[in-house]
Amino acid sequence: MSNVKQFTDKLEKLNYENMYNGDFFLTWEKTDDEIQAVYEVADALRHLRENNVSTKIFDSGLGISLFRDNSTRTRFSFASACNLLGLEVQDLDEGKSQIAHGETVRETANMISFMADVIGIRDDMYIGKGNTYMHNVVDAVTQGHDDGVLEQKPTLVNLQCDIDHPTQILADSLHVIHELGGIENLKGKKLAMTWAYSPSYGKPLSVPQGAIGLFTRLGMDVTLAYPEGYEVMDEVVEVARKNAEKAGSKFEITNDMKEAFKDADVVYPKSWAPFKAMEERTDLYGKGDMDGIKALEKRLLAQNAEHKDWECTEEMMSLTKEGKALYLHCLPADITDVSCEHGEVAASVFDRYRDPLYKEASFKPYIIAAMIFLAKVKDPVAKLKELEENAKKRQNVD
Amino acid sequence: MSNVKQFTDKLEKLNYENMYNGDFFLTWEKTDDEIQAVYEVADALRHLRENNVSTKIFDSGLGISLFRDNSTRTRFSFASACNLLGLEVQDLDEGKSQIAHGETVRETANMISFMADVIGIRDDMYIGKGNTYMHNVVDAVTQGHDDGVLEQKPTLVNLQCDIDHPTQILADSLHVIHELGGIENLKGKKLAMTWAYSPSYGKPLSVPQGAIGLFTRLGMDVTLAYPEGYEVMDEVVEVARKNAEKAGSKFEITNDMKEAFKDADVVYPKSWAPFKAMEERTDLYGKGDMDGIKALEKRLLAQNAEHKDWECTEEMMSLTKEGKALYLHCLPADITDVSCEHGEVAASVFDRYRDPLYKEASFKPYIIAAMIFLAKVKDPVAKLKELEENAKKRQNVD
Amino acid sequence: MSNVKQFTDKLEKLNYENMYNGDFFLTWEKTDDEIQAVYEVADALRHLRENNVSTKIFDSGLGISLFRDNSTRTRFSFASACNLLGLEVQDLDEGKSQIAHGETVRETANMISFMADVIGIRDDMYIGKGNTYMHNVVDAVTQGHDDGVLEQKPTLVNLQCDIDHPTQILADSLHVIHELGGIENLKGKKLAMTWAYSPSYGKPLSVPQGAIGLFTRLGMDVTLAYPEGYEVMDEVVEVARKNAEKAGSKFEITNDMKEAFKDADVVYPKSWAPFKAMEERTDLYGKGDMDGIKALEKRLLAQNAEHKDWECTEEMMSLTKEGKALYLHCLPADITDVSCEHGEVAASVFDRYRDPLYKEASFKPYIIAAMIFLAKVKDPVAKLKELEENAKKRQNVD
Repeated sequence: MSNVKQFTDKLEKLNYENMYNGDFFLTWEKTDDEIQAVYEVADALRHLRENNVSTKIFDSGLGISLFRDNSTRTRFSFASACNLLGLEVQDLDEGKSQIAHGETVRETANMISFMADVIGIRDDMYIGKGNTYMHNVVDAVTQGHDDGVLEQKPTLVNLQCDIDHPTQILADSLHVIHELGGIENLKGKKLAMTWAYSPSYGKPLSVPQGAIGLFTRLGMDVTLAYPEGYEVMDEVVEVARKNAEKAGSKFEITNDMKEAFKDADVVYPKSWAPFKAMEERTDLYGKGDMDGIKALEKRLLAQNAEHKDWECTEEMMSLTKEGKALYLHCLPADITDVSCEHGEVAASVFDRYRDPLYKEASFKPYIIAAMIFLAKVKDPVAKLKELEENAKKRQNVD
Repeated sequence: MSNVKQFTDKLEKLNYENMYNGDFFLTWEKTDDEIQAVYEVADALRHLRENNVSTKIFDSGLGISLFRDNSTRTRFSFASACNLLGLEVQDLDEGKSQIAHGETVRETANMISFMADVIGIRDDMYIGKGNTYMHNVVDAVTQGHDDGVLEQKPTLVNLQCDIDHPTQILADSLHVIHELGGIENLKGKKLAMTWAYSPSYGKPLSVPQGAIGLFTRLGMDVTLAYPEGYEVMDEVVEVARKNAEKAGSKFEITNDMKEAFKDADVVYPKSWAPFKAMEERTDLYGKGDMDGIKALEKRLLAQNAEHKDWECTEEMMSLTKEGKALYLHCLPADITDVSCEHGEVAASVFDRYRDPLYKEASFKPYIIAAMIFLAKVKDPVAKLKELEENAKKRQNVD
Repeated sequence: MSNVKQFTDKLEKLNYENMYNGDFFLTWEKTDDEIQAVYEVADALRHLRENNVSTKIFDSGLGISLFRDNSTRTRFSFASACNLLGLEVQDLDEGKSQIAHGETVRETANMISFMADVIGIRDDMYIGKGNTYMHNVVDAVTQGHDDGVLEQKPTLVNLQCDIDHPTQILADSLHVIHELGGIENLKGKKLAMTWAYSPSYGKPLSVPQGAIGLFTRLGMDVTLAYPEGYEVMDEVVEVARKNAEKAGSKFEITNDMKEAFKDADVVYPKSWAPFKAMEERTDLYGKGDMDGIKALEKRLLAQNAEHKDWECTEEMMSLTKEGKALYLHCLPADITDVSCEHGEVAASVFDRYRDPLYKEASFKPYIIAAMIFLAKVKDPVAKLKELEENAKKRQNVD
């Protein structure tokens, strides 16, 4: 029996009115209430779908996706979220478009948005570029709407930028909340966000940055661990420090994986490239210096190879709280002896956590749908109740 | 408050019954009443959407798109139009299909149309090919429907061919109608359709041809201007002449851009390739003569470069009526110092007209939707009123 | 006037309850009743659509497609079927995904399925791989559903594997049923499934295998004919033999095309590659032996060229029952003097059967929709009646 009241009761106590007609760039640009509103709406939408209640609030409308990097799960999560709310996904494939002809961001943004209610963008490869690009798009469509060009301002959903990966980290954290039995239970728990060895290089920084930027404010004691030289963005470290201070939690950085794993309740071991190297790479691409890029790549792989011991092994897991820390990963993981010779995680550890990992991923469609819902619906509490009362079937199969 | 009567009142006075179950190839194959019906239905659909009234007349059904050339705005316009009416877009990507195996047009057309209500095609690159291909497709599905293979005959929407670009020019002209305050105000106004310099070559002729083929019959005095050697298709020039004669308007050709701009109310400066060169190119592609194509390309770029003075500068704009002519472009434009060193238009001119240009583009989804609506709906006046009365919400967010 | 009772009356007498929540891999894994249920539901859905009755049983939900080989008609058939039932197609383009990063089938299958109701897969190129892959996907999502990762288990539709092509052969056979005036009329009729010459090589075996695996159980006397060396899979020959035995029909293999065509009521001449060669090719790809593949290709083309007389000519057709056998093909066909110099069929034969061939293809969307319907709807008889009674319009255009 569906009863959405369990979520709307909490939602009613939160102040999230600024999300209406807003966009979602970085989690730390949102208030604690706003973050919690995303969780509650995500849970409510999931609850309704599980009870076969349609949540289609759009009768027509487009959800535009723009992926400047490969994607499976985020692509399907975005498509699922749009579909759940009644929007049809239209992918902007830059290869098939005329954008190469020298069209400006401002122009493209308007041209694709005449009937767009949402724009989802992944642009995570170049430092200083992705988030900036998203802001340019939002500025363009905001002005387009103000000027009467667009009937509606599409809401932006950051599907991963150079700074943060909010849909991922919000899904990760909602998973932790469910596993620990409520957001209030995160307080004082230890989370280890650690680097891990991977035979590939140049993995984005948005996950570790997103993690330290969000889990600190949820009251968790966050330890960021990486080998010397794998520093993340200074600004985000600063965000994490301030969050911890405000939340009364700890934020520590160490170059010792074991120290991070020690007594951790949650571990998130994952490879990334050093921020400085990513900056250098961005510059080299900017200059079109392909020889420079090759040299950098070689250097980074050699640097990675010095840290093959940064692996989430059984031994490492045994250091955690009762040896039973919750293992997180954004997937796909580099699994030793499965997808590569040496990787981020031992096969036995990964296998043991397969179910929780898949559940972790299952929250992303709902997180994205919640972001859209909160940006589009004037009174989310009333609308969720209305959807439950109307009880239109999601699938009319019984 | 929505009141669609302002549009249906006009629609009731028009004779457009032949559009039912029809197709849209070239504007000059339609009567004046039929053209005006497209404008009225486009405005009505826009009015309903702006008032949050759903115009989904299809509960299921496919809109097939086939783009044989890159496209952003037409692709998204077609997707928006289909979505607005309840059709799901399915793209025929010839690279992923089996068409290369030697399948005939007739066969492909039927195979993709079992549940297709609309087929939109862009095929503008080769002289004598695009429009012919569209007719072949329509002949095939018409026969398929007659023979009981297809339950419905999908309607064809020409999304740009070698002869005309009807969805573009109808959007352009509806924009002019709105800017001038009504179709009756176009009479006697001067429109300059002029060539402009671009560092690229081989741009389609469908826009200038479409413009002289349509604006002449709307009662405008149309001047077509280009450097010697950049002639367009003779047949379309003939169409323009006859239109002007019938409408009591003027149609002139000049090799002087300034003469065209002089006292113009509307200017449309845009690059295109000479018709003769496009014919030659089509032949060379037919023969697979890649060296010939390279030589032609070189020759055309050199020829273009002799006419860098054909630019829509501030000085040029000052020649127009009170220096305030409405500037049109199908976008993307080659903007001097922005997208190239020398282009079709000065940055300051383009910037000043950015809002109107984007509004011009915003009509295309509605023009396409109107074409579909008129081909599919038996009694458009009654249906528009019914949609307004039912007042199903487009977005159920309040 | 719609009356779906003609189909539900037959459906009521059939036992197909095991199809609920099931998947569709191979026709011979289904009972006779289950096969007939697919025909009845396909006919019923078509009947409803022809009478403008909506059959959207899903208000939201995704239909995932994965094509590991080019496809036009199957791609559009799957899209049409999903759309007809209310599902939005989301294509898993492996090139744009992260699957290359070493992700497992199990993981991908779950990651794309959070809101998937259907997964359609074409994977026909490698012996021992396609069907196995589909089973891996189904095992993964079944476990995902059992473990609480997935809210629903998507149903798998085999859109062609290395063994069978069930949506094709069920469409082919439903066409035969319609042409012969009822399933009971197939008994004792002769069908010739014969190899035919094609200038290309490596065509899949799934059609001939699917044909002998299905038509034998429908009571037809099936003759499989091919030049020596073009044997199909032993296991499927065994299936055909047993089917014939059980149905009291004949199943014969010959190396003489004329013998097969002699007095045939239905002929299905089509090229395929020898099973042994396809196995060899699979091994060579497995080893990455590109030289070996080139040598094999050359050998196969030379072998094909020895059998140019295996063509469905007028003379060959004249051997059939009253010279009027029904000609089948899955399309596209290699037509002599049309798509190639020498092909599978003479142009005059193909032309005479063009309409029936297109009708044959037109059943595929409904076959796919029926497979989904039977896997998802608890009481198909009641639901079909309910849809008819509600009589929601497919297109609201009158």
